[in-house]
Amino acid sequence: MSKSKKRIFLTVVAAASIAGTSLANAAISDEPIQPIEAVKIKNPALVELGKKLYFDPRLSKSGFISCNSCHNLSMGGTDNIKTSIGHNWHQGPINSPTVLNSSMNLAQFWDGRAADLKAQAGGPIDNPGEMGFTHELAVSVLQSIPAYVAEFKKSFGSDKVTIDEVTTAIAAFEETLVTPNSRFDKWLKGDKKALSADEIAGYTLFKESGCVACHNGPAVGGNSYQKMGVVEPYKTTNKAEGRSGVTGKDADRFNFKVPTLRNVELTYPYFHDGEAATLKDAVNTMARVQLGKKFTDKENAKIVAFLKTLTGDQPSFMLPILPPSSDSTPRPQPFSK
Amino acid sequence: MSKSKKRIFLTVVAAASIAGTSLANAAISDEPIQPIEAVKIKNPALVELGKKLYFDPRLSKSGFISCNSCHNLSMGGTDNIKTSIGHNWHQGPINSPTVLNSSMNLAQFWDGRAADLKAQAGGPIDNPGEMGFTHELAVSVLQSIPAYVAEFKKSFGSDKVTIDEVTTAIAAFEETLVTPNSRFDKWLKGDKKALSADEIAGYTLFKESGCVACHNGPAVGGNSYQKMGVVEPYKTTNKAEGRSGVTGKDADRFNFKVPTLRNVELTYPYFHDGEAATLKDAVNTMARVQLGKKFTDKENAKIVAFLKTLTGDQPSFMLPILPPSSDSTPRPQPFSK
Repeated sequence: MSKSKKRIFLTVVAAASIAGTSLANAAISDEPIQPIEAVKIKNPALVELGKKLYFDPRLSKSGFISCNSCHNLSMGGTDNIKTSIGHNWHQGPINSPTVLNSSMNLAQFWDGRAADLKAQAGGPIDNPGEMGFTHELAVSVLQSIPAYVAEFKKSFGSDKVTIDEVTTAIAAFEETLVTPNSRFDKWLKGDKKALSADEIAGYTLFKESGCVACHNGPAVGGNSYQKMGVVEPYKTTNKAEGRSGVTGKDADRFNFKVPTLRNVELTYPYFHDGEAATLKDAVNTMARVQLGKKFTDKENAKIVAFLKTLTGDQPSFMLPILPPSSDSTPRPQPFSK
Repeated sequence: MSKSKKRIFLTVVAAASIAGTSLANAAISDEPIQPIEAVKIKNPALVELGKKLYFDPRLSKSGFISCNSCHNLSMGGTDNIKTSIGHNWHQGPINSPTVLNSSMNLAQFWDGRAADLKAQAGGPIDNPGEMGFTHELAVSVLQSIPAYVAEFKKSFGSDKVTIDEVTTAIAAFEETLVTPNSRFDKWLKGDKKALSADEIAGYTLFKESGCVACHNGPAVGGNSYQKMGVVEPYKTTNKAEGRSGVTGKDADRFNFKVPTLRNVELTYPYFHDGEAATLKDAVNTMARVQLGKKFTDKENAKIVAFLKTLTGDQPSFMLPILPPSSDSTPRPQPFSK
C-alpha cells in the first residue's frame, strides 16, 4: 500500500471505529464494516403506495418501463445489463446501480447529482432515454386513476397528486429495501461459524490490501467519491466522466461514487460501465487500477468468497396489484415519435 | 337476434347448462357462465420454478424481457398496450392476451396455433420480435445457473435442463393463475347482494342481446373461434387474419379465439388489435359488428357495470427472487445486431 493510500485507509478505519463504538458490542466496532439493520416501517400506507408506483410502467411514455425494469427487485435491484435499455430501446450511458440499501448512499446516481432518493426518483421519469415521459404527464396519468387518487389522499391529505408526492412515496418504499442478515453480518455480530476459513481470509485480504479504504461502513461503500483509476488510468470506451459534471471541477473527472458491495454477488456486471462481467474480473481490475496490486488466483478467489457473504435478505413482499386506468387515463404512446 | 345467432346462442346455453348441472346447485346450472374455482396446486416445487422462469428476463436475448413484461401479473396479466413491445422495441403484430385463466382457453394465441400453455410458452422466447432468443441459448443460460439446475433436478430428476422442462414449468405456474371470487361468481353462487340492480340488468342485457353466445362458460369466452365482424366487416389497419393462418382455410379469415371476459376491467385495450381503449368502446363495437345492434348509453353503461363484476382475486404471491448468473452464464446481448 502506498503511503497516501495507507493514510486514507487508516483514517477511514478509525472514523468507522469511532462511529460504531458501543460498550455492548466492542467486536463490531473494531471492524470497518458494520451490520445492516432491518428497517422499521413508519408509514405503511405511504410505502405501499410507493411500491405500486415503483412497479407501475404507466410512469413511462411507453407504458412499458417502470422503476423495477432497471432496478429489478427479483435481481438484486439491478437489471444485470452493462448499461440499461430505455425508451425506444435507447442504450443507456451508464450501469444501473442497485436500489438495495441505496438509502445509505451519500448521494444518488454514480456522479451524486441527486441529493437523496426522492431527488433521484424523478430523474428517470422525464429522461428521454429512460422512461421518456414528463412529470406533468406522469402526474396526469395518476390523477386519472381513482384508486391512486384515494391512496395519495390518504398519505398526503389532498385530492391533487403532485410529482413531489410521487417521488416522496417512491423514496419511502426504496428506504425499506435494505438487506440485513447476510452471513457476513451474522459473523460480525458474533456467530463465528457463519463464515468459512477462506471467507475470513478473503475479508482479511480485503482489509489489508486497502479495498476497505473505500468500501467500508454498513453499505461497504456508497459513502465517498473516488477516482476510477488511482494508480493506473482506467481504460474504457464509456464516456461518463463522473463527478466533474456536477462540480464543474476538472479534478473531479472520473470520480464516481464508490458503489456498495452489499449483495454484490447479484449486482453484476460491475463498474459504472458494466465492463467487468464477473467478481473475479472486478477484483482484478480494482486491484490493478486502484491499488497497484496483482492478486494471485487463490487470493482473488478468497476475496470473491468473502464478497459473496455480503448477500443479505432480499426484499420480501407480495407482488403489487396496480389499480386499473380509467376511461380518461391518457394511454401509453410506445411507438409515437 | 338473427335466426342463426339465436341457434348458436341457445345451443351454447344448453351445452353450458348440461355441463354445469348438479343437484346441489341448480341455480348456477341455469346460467351460461359458471364460477371459477380456486386451483389446488399439485406440485408446488414445479410451480415455484415456473414462477421464477416467468419473471426471468434472462430467457430473452436482451436480458430485459420476461413473460411478465407483456403478461404483467400486476396489471391483469397483460401489458395494457395496443400491441406489445418486443426485442429492440419491435412493435408487435397483435394485442397480448391475458395470461389469467388462460388454462381454460381451448387453445393459445389469438389464432389458436398453440394447443396448450406448454406449447405457447416456447413461442415468445424464440420469436425475433418478442424475446429474440433461441431455445438453445435460453436453456444454456439456465444450465449455467447452479440454483436453477438444482430446481430442475428436483422437479424432473435430471441434471440436464431441456426446453421441454422449461415450458412445462412455466405452464404449471400459469395454470395457477385463475381468479376466483369475483362479485359475479359470488352472485352466481347465491349471494344475491353481491351485484347491484344495474349490474344485474347489465347481465340480463348481455344474455338477451346475444353477447353470451360467444362469451360463456367459466372464462366467459376462450372456448370458441368466431369471426371478428359477423354482421358488418370490422375495419382495422391491423394485418392479423387469425385462424386462417393455422387452418389454411379462406373461410377462417378474421376468425379469432373469443377472448375471456374475466378481469376485463384490467385487460384494456381490447380486441386483437387493441383498438378499443375502453369497455364502452368495446361494447359498442361488438354490438355493431357482431350483433347488428346499437345500445343506448344507459344500456352500454349497464353492460359495462356487469363486466366489471368479473374481476376476481388477482394472483397473490411473493415477488420471486431469481438465482444469480454464474461466471459461465452467457451474458445478455441487448444491443448487438
